[in-house]
Order: sequence, then C-alpha cells, then structure tokens
Amino acid sequence: MTDNATLVLGFSEYAEAGRRLAEACGYDFAEVSVHQFPDGERRVQLPGSLPDRVVFCRSLNDPDHKLIELFLAAATARQLGAIDLTLVAPYLCYMRQDIAFTPGEAVSQRILGALLAQHFDGLITVDPHLHRVHSLGEAVPVSRPQVPDTAPVLASFLKGQLDNPLLVGPDEESEQWVGAIAREQQLDFVVGRKVRHGDRDVEIELPTMNYRDRHTVLVDDVASTGSTLRVAGELLLAKQAASVDVLVTHALFAGDALERLTASGIRHVWSTDAIPHSTNRVHLDHLLAEALET
Amino acid sequence: MTDNATLVLGFSEYAEAGRRLAEACGYDFAEVSVHQFPDGERRVQLPGSLPDRVVFCRSLNDPDHKLIELFLAAATARQLGAIDLTLVAPYLCYMRQDIAFTPGEAVSQRILGALLAQHFDGLITVDPHLHRVHSLGEAVPVSRPQVPDTAPVLASFLKGQLDNPLLVGPDEESEQWVGAIAREQQLDFVVGRKVRHGDRDVEIELPTMNYRDRHTVLVDDVASTGSTLRVAGELLLAKQAASVDVLVTHALFAGDALERLTASGIRHVWSTDAIPHSTNRVHLDHLLAEALET
Repeated sequence: MTDNATLVLGFSEYAEAGRRLAEACGYDFAEVSVHQFPDGERRVQLPGSLPDRVVFCRSLNDPDHKLIELFLAAATARQLGAIDLTLVAPYLCYMRQDIAFTPGEAVSQRILGALLAQHFDGLITVDPHLHRVHSLGEAVPVSRPQVPDTAPVLASFLKGQLDNPLLVGPDEESEQWVGAIAREQQLDFVVGRKVRHGDRDVEIELPTMNYRDRHTVLVDDVASTGSTLRVAGELLLAKQAASVDVLVTHALFAGDALERLTASGIRHVWSTDAIPHSTNRVHLDHLLAEALET
Repeated sequence: MTDNATLVLGFSEYAEAGRRLAEACGYDFAEVSVHQFPDGERRVQLPGSLPDRVVFCRSLNDPDHKLIELFLAAATARQLGAIDLTLVAPYLCYMRQDIAFTPGEAVSQRILGALLAQHFDGLITVDPHLHRVHSLGEAVPVSRPQVPDTAPVLASFLKGQLDNPLLVGPDEESEQWVGAIAREQQLDFVVGRKVRHGDRDVEIELPTMNYRDRHTVLVDDVASTGSTLRVAGELLLAKQAASVDVLVTHALFAGDALERLTASGIRHVWSTDAIPHSTNRVHLDHLLAEALET
C-alpha cells in the first residue's frame, strides 16, 4: 500500500537508509540532488511537486554542510506547498553543548535546536546525547519530538551474539543506555567513572568485581574518538576478561578511531545504521518507521 | 578615539582584516574563538560581556561552516545583551542562485538571505554577485543593507599600475564593474560575451577592434575556477595584446585556478582583500569603515 500523501526525501550519503524507511512505511521515496560548485557552495534540487507531508531522512554527523542543505531544502519544500515537514535524523548534531561553561560560550544545542524547530514540524532521532536537558523537545522545540527506544533492538541483537555477556557502561553518562539494554534481556551490567583531560585524553575507573573470563560488551551511545571505549577495553583486558566487544548506536569514529580501537584488543565493534559505517550491524528502519507512523 | 559602545569581532582566518577595520573606526577588536571537535562540530566562544553594538567581520567564501558559526555567534551575542548586530562580509555567499531555473530548485539567495536577516540588523558587503535581483536589501532583507562602491579604489589602484590600459569585461555580467571603474578614471573599456557549457567550460567572444600592443586588464567581480578569465586572456593574447593582467574584487580561486591562469600567459593577478589570498593588493578597510560609520 502506498500512501501518496507522504514522500520521504533522502540525501546521497544516506539514501539507502531513507529508501528502507520509505519502504517500511509504504511511502514514496525520492533523492534530493545536491550539486557542489567549485567554490564550495551547494545547489539543492527537490522534486518539482510535493505532497502535503514530506519526511527528510538524513543523519547529522559532520553536520554543517548538511544543516545548510537541510535549511535550503526545507524552505524550498514549504515554497512548493508542503504543509508538514518531519526530519528523521537518527544522529542529531550539536546536542552536547547544552549550557555555557563560561560566559560567552554559544549554547549550540539551544541555538541550532531553535533553527531546526523553525524548519521542521516533527523530529525523530535515537539516543540523542542529552545530558543536563532531559527531553528532546526542550533541546529542539518542534511540535512533534520523538525518541523511539533503541534498547529492545540492541538487546535482541546482543542476545543473538553472546551467551551471558557482561555489559559495561564506560562512564556515568552511558548508564542510561547500558541499563536499558541490560534490563530488556536481564543481563548483568556495570558502569564505570570517567575523568576527561582533553578531547582524546581520558581515564576510566571500573567497579571492583571479578571480570575474569567474562565476555564483556562495552555499550555507549556514541563513539567519536573512541578514547573512552579504548581505555575501558584495555582495563577489562587487564582484568582478564575473556573478550571485549563494543556496541554503540552512533558510529562517528573520527579519523583512525576504529583502527586504534581494534588494535587495542577489542574483538568486535558493532553499531546501528544511525550513521552509515562499516561496523553497522543493527538496522533501525522498522523502529523509525513505527515512530513515523504514530 | 575609542568608541567603547562598539566592538568588532573577528574570526581566525579573517582576523587581520577585522583588526584593520576596527582600527580604521577606532573601535575595539576581539576574536571569536572557535574550537573544532574531532567529529566536526564547533564550539564558539565570544567575550563574556558585549557592548550594545557588535560588528561581526567575516568574509563568506567556502561558507557553510562559517554560516553555522555566525548563527551561533549572533544568537549568543543577543543572549549576552547586544542590541545591534552588523555583519561585515566583504564576500557574501550564495548570491548567485536568485531564481529557480527548474521547479524544486532551492533559491539559496533568498533562503539564506532571510536567515542572515534574522540574525543581523546591518550588512555591509562589496560587489555582491546580484544578477536578476538589483538591490542587496531584496536578497538579504536586513534593516541596513550597504554596498560601498569599490570602483574608486580599484580605479585608483589601476592608475598606479598602468599607463592608458584597456579594461576588458569578459562577459555581460562584468559590465557593471568594468564600466564603473573605467568611468572613474576615463579609461577605455570593452565587454565580451560568454557562452557557458559547464562549471569549468566556457566560450568568450570579444568585440571586434584592434587589441594589438594594448596593455589590457581583465576586470571582474569574482574569480572562482578562473575559466572565464583564462579563456578571455588567451583570446586577448591571440589578438596580440601587449600584456594581460587581471583585477578582481573576490579572489575565490578554487583549487589550482590561479596556477592555470598564470600558466596561460596572464601577467599580473590583482585582487582586493575581500577574500584573503596571495593576490591581494587592494585594501578595503577604509571603504568598509566609512560604510560602518554612516
């Protein structure tokens, strides 16, 4: 069944996920064409006519170009007569800076949240890195903020991989994710503590317990430099864990982060397709489709 | 004399121009600090307290990151209590796409113009590439749009370089610039015609006349790929011009554009400091300062 009143629009680097999302909902799909001029400016081209309801599907890692293109695309969709615009951004950018640590610091979460809310009526994302702000709608005040729960699909994926794993959240912030996944399948879990000295320099403390011969899985929402996961993995191996795997929702993996992670003794690195990456093992299309249809 | 009620804020890649502008006006200057995280996101830090009137000085070549940073900076300045925000962007981005050539094409000039106008009260730029739209305020509807005239400084620069040059506008669009400069110093000028086959593939026709032994200067607002200027220069050399120099306001010079231009037989390439570049010979600080003070 095709619902011709809704069109999913994707962008080249994320077109496959957009297409799968449209298929899961029975919506039409089209790709937004973006031409980059030699001077770095972009030309954004949408289909010439649009239905009332348009869904933009694009994950916002490495976000600045994508944001400008999305603002151009959303404004153009309105001019073409679209009434309701939803952004499906499985990875949502600029969520970490939610307060000014010193006077004069830009609170990028609120500022870009307001710009996104100005362009879109609905927003669907997963595992946004909300820290001091507790709801997506506070960070991005769209009419319909939705954060479908990834814990069931992640827990069910892990169950297919390992027998009786010990889930490890490397730091306090990861507790919300590791706890939710562990509870889904009654798995053991512990949570460490992090002291950060810089973008790439972190120290981890893990609770005192017997890790020997346990199959451990480090669970976090996002891997960027991978430093936190690497340091925690080395600690687990030093404590004679049988294996250390990694499961993250968002595979940012800046630069050589993945290579350094696997070189440090981590066995498997698994991620969802929230951000397209070679480590993607868990598809989120049905989860996102359910949210889109409610 | 320092006017403490106005602060000029610059950004690293354009700090020198910002500093010179502040000095020319007797205003204070500070640099906005931008930290780039490993995942590509930015942290933007302004001074902790601001006067009522703040001037952001930043040229918008390669614009997307700069636009996001400017939106973050402007919103933060408002939160800190600044009442009047002016953007001095000697090169203004996304001005070329001023109509939809096919249905569904984003009219980036109008869309980003509206976003800029939402953030700034004043805008000062030079030689914006306005084609079908005739005033800056139509493209970027700020309260105070200003386009100070570069023709006098460019004409006076040329007069110091060459005796009796022939100014050549390579195509119809360049007529407004070459004509204005020529009239300033009563110089000869001609204008060619362009047929464009792609971003880098252009044909030029020049008026039939005697170019032999003339010192010619190709004049345009912007050099991006340099294709137009290169093709026009080769034509002038084939017509036995004594020399071909280039004078542009905006030295975008994408990739190896400058190398290809000089390799084709062009003698000198001169530009203003609207965009920082090795070819900069003409300072615009006094022109911009005058506009800022009116």
